[in-house]
Amino acid sequence: MIYADYNGSAPIGQAVKEYLVNRLNNDGPYANPNAIHFLGSKCLRILETARQVCADVLGARPDQVFFTSGASEGISTIFHSAVLRAKEQGRQSILISQIEHAATIAAALFYEKQGMKLIWIPTLPSGVVDLEFVKKILKTQAKDIACVAVMAANNETGVIQPYSEIGKCAEENQVLFLCDTTQLIGKAEFSFSTSHLDFAVCSGHKLGALPGSGLLLAKHPTLLRPIIFGGGQELGKRGGTQNYIGAETLAIALKNFADNKDQLKTLNTARLSFEAKIKNGLPGLIIFSEEVSRLSNTTFLAYPGIMGQAVQIELESKNIFITTSAACSDNEPATSKVLQAMNIDDAIGRGAVRISLGLWSAPTDYDIIADAIIWAYKKLLKIQSY
Amino acid sequence: MIYADYNGSAPIGQAVKEYLVNRLNNDGPYANPNAIHFLGSKCLRILETARQVCADVLGARPDQVFFTSGASEGISTIFHSAVLRAKEQGRQSILISQIEHAATIAAALFYEKQGMKLIWIPTLPSGVVDLEFVKKILKTQAKDIACVAVMAANNETGVIQPYSEIGKCAEENQVLFLCDTTQLIGKAEFSFSTSHLDFAVCSGHKLGALPGSGLLLAKHPTLLRPIIFGGGQELGKRGGTQNYIGAETLAIALKNFADNKDQLKTLNTARLSFEAKIKNGLPGLIIFSEEVSRLSNTTFLAYPGIMGQAVQIELESKNIFITTSAACSDNEPATSKVLQAMNIDDAIGRGAVRISLGLWSAPTDYDIIADAIIWAYKKLLKIQSY
Repeated sequence: MIYADYNGSAPIGQAVKEYLVNRLNNDGPYANPNAIHFLGSKCLRILETARQVCADVLGARPDQVFFTSGASEGISTIFHSAVLRAKEQGRQSILISQIEHAATIAAALFYEKQGMKLIWIPTLPSGVVDLEFVKKILKTQAKDIACVAVMAANNETGVIQPYSEIGKCAEENQVLFLCDTTQLIGKAEFSFSTSHLDFAVCSGHKLGALPGSGLLLAKHPTLLRPIIFGGGQELGKRGGTQNYIGAETLAIALKNFADNKDQLKTLNTARLSFEAKIKNGLPGLIIFSEEVSRLSNTTFLAYPGIMGQAVQIELESKNIFITTSAACSDNEPATSKVLQAMNIDDAIGRGAVRISLGLWSAPTDYDIIADAIIWAYKKLLKIQSY
Repeated sequence: MIYADYNGSAPIGQAVKEYLVNRLNNDGPYANPNAIHFLGSKCLRILETARQVCADVLGARPDQVFFTSGASEGISTIFHSAVLRAKEQGRQSILISQIEHAATIAAALFYEKQGMKLIWIPTLPSGVVDLEFVKKILKTQAKDIACVAVMAANNETGVIQPYSEIGKCAEENQVLFLCDTTQLIGKAEFSFSTSHLDFAVCSGHKLGALPGSGLLLAKHPTLLRPIIFGGGQELGKRGGTQNYIGAETLAIALKNFADNKDQLKTLNTARLSFEAKIKNGLPGLIIFSEEVSRLSNTTFLAYPGIMGQAVQIELESKNIFITTSAACSDNEPATSKVLQAMNIDDAIGRGAVRISLGLWSAPTDYDIIADAIIWAYKKLLKIQSY
């Protein structure tokens, strides 16, 4: 079995698995981390250690780390915070890229209904957001902008966006910058403190931690306003009894990534030769955003006229699990919003399939997938030609 | 070691523990439940099975169950939904009890700042909310009320509130009723369909499921508006990749409770003889809300002039873990808001300690705690008398 949908979700990591089994079998501490008794304090200490580990790996201060249930909660919290502040300051616009994740788009559309104006950042055909457009708007309309939302790396194409440049420009013009780092963290180098971001987010399940774990990073924690109310947990910025077990697994997964990030180079090399191999075997195959900087693990491809879902099913028959685009929009046979923003034709867009591996995928996985991809397309092209 | 802080958080249940260790050791399925491939569908099926189990145990339809990260998220979502609807309908008040959990109070205070008017329901000295007051307001001001928020059972006193009566009255007057059932579920019989509630909530960690798991129940799911935006998960009412492992553990914990709820009677009998024993051993001891219907597992007590924290520390020296009040307000030496609402004097209020056991606590636990309680108070009274 080859799992090639790491951008959708990663399997629970081996280190996380071992930690959890050991914790469960050896009666690790369980209590409300806010309780005054010894067991509560013990859970709180574990939680704070996890926070320190996450902060260290992500280049942030521990007081900038807020544990959440995942990136969508983080994004929703940040929008809520930015819009409440904007109302106080009379700012009325949100600057947002077209290729954001569904959570970011949905949050922005909600606030549009509440009276905010959305300014959509165009995407270049390469899959990179139009940096010049962002800079122009930030320079000319800064005082009206509640926040700018541009992701660090796109979930479908894997394209790494110019987030630090946007961060610098946002900083200079005193506009809050929400950078959805969900796909970048654990798949590329990242440092919060040097990236000029005001806010970043992370989902544990994308990294091999437990689903339902996550965190958000805030450069200025006082700017955060909770969407989940509670009894003062997470410095009053996120209510609810802390998911300390989730946080522990997130810390382990992040630490594991940090200790093994040299693997990224190996993965990147393997991906590039995989892409060369399938292009060689299938002249006419398109790899989206091929010419720009992408994540080491992501290949988003299509063959004009061949439906993505057909390819996905063929590969599944060989026990290889890939997907057609973002999990959230998977079930739609239409061209994804990301590819539409890149001005990709429907005949190609409907053919998109995504192959995304992990840091611990077997080195031979790409070889097996390449053979299967070539076999599948040749089969489907033969059927098509009848 | 005796853990007597189940109202704060329950240890992971044995059945949940075994399930998780087995799942981790035998490579249970991991994937994004929204992915179209076989592994994704498998995770989605598991999630939907968990939803069905939770619905069955709680007397709800599966389409009324929305998985969340816990009760605080549920409460926050319900307030957000009720207030957005209220704005459309021109309703401007929230009817809320004084003894609600910190999450409910904090949510209400946020919306007060946003322009809503709060009507506080008084509490009788018994610890029961003033039902006549609720009925009067619901009858005379129904059209102005966004929602009424009264918990099912209080986390500190364990008092079971007249939630079904409030539900009936709210229903008759077409006012939404948010009932915080966090402490009731898993500690008493409960059926959503017969309780006349519009919304209810549940936290997994209170039941022995993983922290970070939870659900909310909505009689009319269309009334829900998300606070966490995403890609259409949970029928568009709660974004973010579903925490399917958390949901699985919640289903197991709830099923386990349902299969063993006869134990409640045994626990209740044991609690009553425990209370009789400590009162007998310590004339002058006060058990809060002694005369009204309480949860089978909760005893909230005080001895005038003896600080609660001193008792908690003495018991901890005997490896018995109790707490002074709700975990969230634990660190304050002041009389809790719940006891203040019951008009309890500070000399007594500051002495409050809570003993809360679980369905699987050893039958001898109450005996050991009783001896320790009597010993601790006698010691502290002796010190006080010098």
